Amino acid sequence: MNFCSACGNTITQQIPVGDNRLRDVCDDCGMIHYSNPNNVCGAILTWKGKILLCKRAIEPRSGFWTLPAGFMENGETIAQAAARESMEEANAEAQSLRLFGVFSLPHISQIYLMFQGELKTDQVFPGTESLQTELFEVDDIPWDELAFPVITHCLNLYIDHPENKSVHTATAIRHEDRHVDWIDQTISN
Amino acid sequence: MNFCSACGNTITQQIPVGDNRLRDVCDDCGMIHYSNPNNVCGAILTWKGKILLCKRAIEPRSGFWTLPAGFMENGETIAQAAARESMEEANAEAQSLRLFGVFSLPHISQIYLMFQGELKTDQVFPGTESLQTELFEVDDIPWDELAFPVITHCLNLYIDHPENKSVHTATAIRHEDRHVDWIDQTISN
Repeated sequence: MNFCSACGNTITQQIPVGDNRLRDVCDDCGMIHYSNPNNVCGAILTWKGKILLCKRAIEPRSGFWTLPAGFMENGETIAQAAARESMEEANAEAQSLRLFGVFSLPHISQIYLMFQGELKTDQVFPGTESLQTELFEVDDIPWDELAFPVITHCLNLYIDHPENKSVHTATAIRHEDRHVDWIDQTISN
Repeated sequence: MNFCSACGNTITQQIPVGDNRLRDVCDDCGMIHYSNPNNVCGAILTWKGKILLCKRAIEPRSGFWTLPAGFMENGETIAQAAARESMEEANAEAQSLRLFGVFSLPHISQIYLMFQGELKTDQVFPGTESLQTELFEVDDIPWDELAFPVITHCLNLYIDHPENKSVHTATAIRHEDRHVDWIDQTISN
């Protein structure tokens, strides 16, 4: 951040009075500009046991498969965001959504809030951000072509805990070689 | 938002190509400035059945009681944010934190991620954002002096579902008279 979004003057990083972190503070009007983590909401949607995946049409990871998911918008609930992303990326109507997992990715300051639910029909087709949509049997999931580690982790949890009624919580630890481990904080029933 | 934080030129609200919402777009460099919901992380912390509350020293709702909670910072996990806020507001050391509830407040574009856990000791005292810290028996909770509807709802869920091992999810509906109802999406075990 270089300029104040309120008055257009220059910014200096400093620790405001009463704070303990560097913030972007306007040199003129004194406005403090906070930067906070973003939420990504999405869903594991199934039709007769098959799981909906979308092949990404946009970077990052264009051409790789993912669960429908995207940045939450102002004015939404987390479930509304997951349903909207499912519609935008796969024209998929979600029903019976319940929270499945909350995943912290502190290295990129993101929180994934993933739901599980059912498709109302098997009529899905790509939105503008997808190249392809497909319903995969569990045995046919393209593990080597998944877009992000959090999607792999989410699908693994879903397959390994078919009867789980609680909500998974986990934290990503990204190592210098970009390998990601998960500290699993799943609460088993 | 009036000015571009990257180049300092003026902003016009427009719908970018491939998008469907008004965004703040720079008239000069074209940068799109997104605004997204913020996460508030906090905790219900207990010592021998008593619940820690903090009397707020800052606006909004200065002088009213709340659970320790505050805005999540970049680079944190949700549990780290809840533990940090507990330390900052009540010098309270939290342990055995597990996710208790995820509450959507779409009218203010906030998500509350509340944990439950135990205090390591009963030695708590106010941080700079609190006037007072106190451990309340359930029967002594000052219901009429709580700071925010989400805190009331969270405490009610905690008291009404003592054995609940799942995670509560709920959405706030704020009416024009500022009264808040909750659409409860609790998953019972």
